[in-house]
Amino acid sequence: MQIINKIIQLQTDPGINIHKVTSYIEKILTATSIKNGQVLVFSRHTTTALAINENEERLLEDVKVYLRKLAPETDKYLHNDLHLRDVPPDEPINAHSHLMAMTLSTSEVIPVVDGKLALGTYQSVLFFELDGPRQRTLFIQVCGE
Amino acid sequence: MQIINKIIQLQTDPGINIHKVTSYIEKILTATSIKNGQVLVFSRHTTTALAINENEERLLEDVKVYLRKLAPETDKYLHNDLHLRDVPPDEPINAHSHLMAMTLSTSEVIPVVDGKLALGTYQSVLFFELDGPRQRTLFIQVCGE
Amino acid sequence: MQIINKIIQLQTDPGINIHKVTSYIEKILTATSIKNGQVLVFSRHTTTALAINENEERLLEDVKVYLRKLAPETDKYLHNDLHLRDVPPDEPINAHSHLMAMTLSTSEVIPVVDGKLALGTYQSVLFFELDGPRQRTLFIQVCGE
Repeated sequence: MQIINKIIQLQTDPGINIHKVTSYIEKILTATSIKNGQVLVFSRHTTTALAINENEERLLEDVKVYLRKLAPETDKYLHNDLHLRDVPPDEPINAHSHLMAMTLSTSEVIPVVDGKLALGTYQSVLFFELDGPRQRTLFIQVCGE
Repeated sequence: MQIINKIIQLQTDPGINIHKVTSYIEKILTATSIKNGQVLVFSRHTTTALAINENEERLLEDVKVYLRKLAPETDKYLHNDLHLRDVPPDEPINAHSHLMAMTLSTSEVIPVVDGKLALGTYQSVLFFELDGPRQRTLFIQVCGE
Repeated sequence: MQIINKIIQLQTDPGINIHKVTSYIEKILTATSIKNGQVLVFSRHTTTALAINENEERLLEDVKVYLRKLAPETDKYLHNDLHLRDVPPDEPINAHSHLMAMTLSTSEVIPVVDGKLALGTYQSVLFFELDGPRQRTLFIQVCGE
């Protein structure tokens, strides 16, 4: 049984943007000798998130519209009253980003079979920046034998 | 440490329908000798999803209404403009199904104790078909000792 | 490879309330000799749930408002027609709580590196009571070497 930990570094764009990270994960997996087991994908920020779904450009635009409808940036949020909180001068106005993150996923576990991610035909691992631009990290743990 | 991979085959019904899969998973678990560990349940399609909740028929109808309220099928979605995409002739109009899937779960990990799923009293593993009817597969990985 | 299972007991408050459980999980992890691996956090009720996000009091109030907007308690739900179901006399009116739970998470897997949870700077493990007050349990499995 081996456990291998890696970090993926990502420079994101302003606002909401979606990064396809399957190929980075596959590269990490292939560099190990693990043939059977699983990959844990863990989003390490409170305004980023994960989903496993179709990498189709127009659908990814629909997802942004959907998240903005669920948690509109312009709604009033207590978290955005920065004058009532003890915050650094560059604290962002981003309650909506946190809510979107909680609607999506923080951790996803993907089975590994024959040294490959056992994803379905149309499944891609999608990393959501919900309050960019930022330098972000994504944790990958490959576990198996 | 053993890692055992199985696929559950499911024929789904038209539209949104919810399948109780706990007994299939228990059958797979019982056929192994694993007493302590976990079961990874992984939905392998971009318009199916998972939840672990109560198997109560009226609640399952409420969930369908809830998902349709969050992502109405009749809203305008870019993904549904098939004439602007390179798609096969049988491509479905299903942006809403993808959005529902991202709101629910793709992967769930359930602890195994004394050879049994350590689910709470009212918890069932629910597989959501969000764009049926289709032939679907659900990946089950039992891991432990 | 070790697998250690523990239960956290929680007495919750009325209605929706959010409990910060990171320190309980860290205490369980530290009591093991596991340095590399993962912690599975599993919510064992159909009206409780998990999220990994920022422990900021005003944001946690925003999340409650958000969940109540998505699944209003006062909407009509089939699950709440108790006279049409076979239920015990103390059955709660809580369809909205189930829907909120399905929008959040039931299972989260957190990597462990150097004997510590590899959470990001602002990440806390949050346990959501969505239909309190109750005595609740949270399952923790530490797995690794």
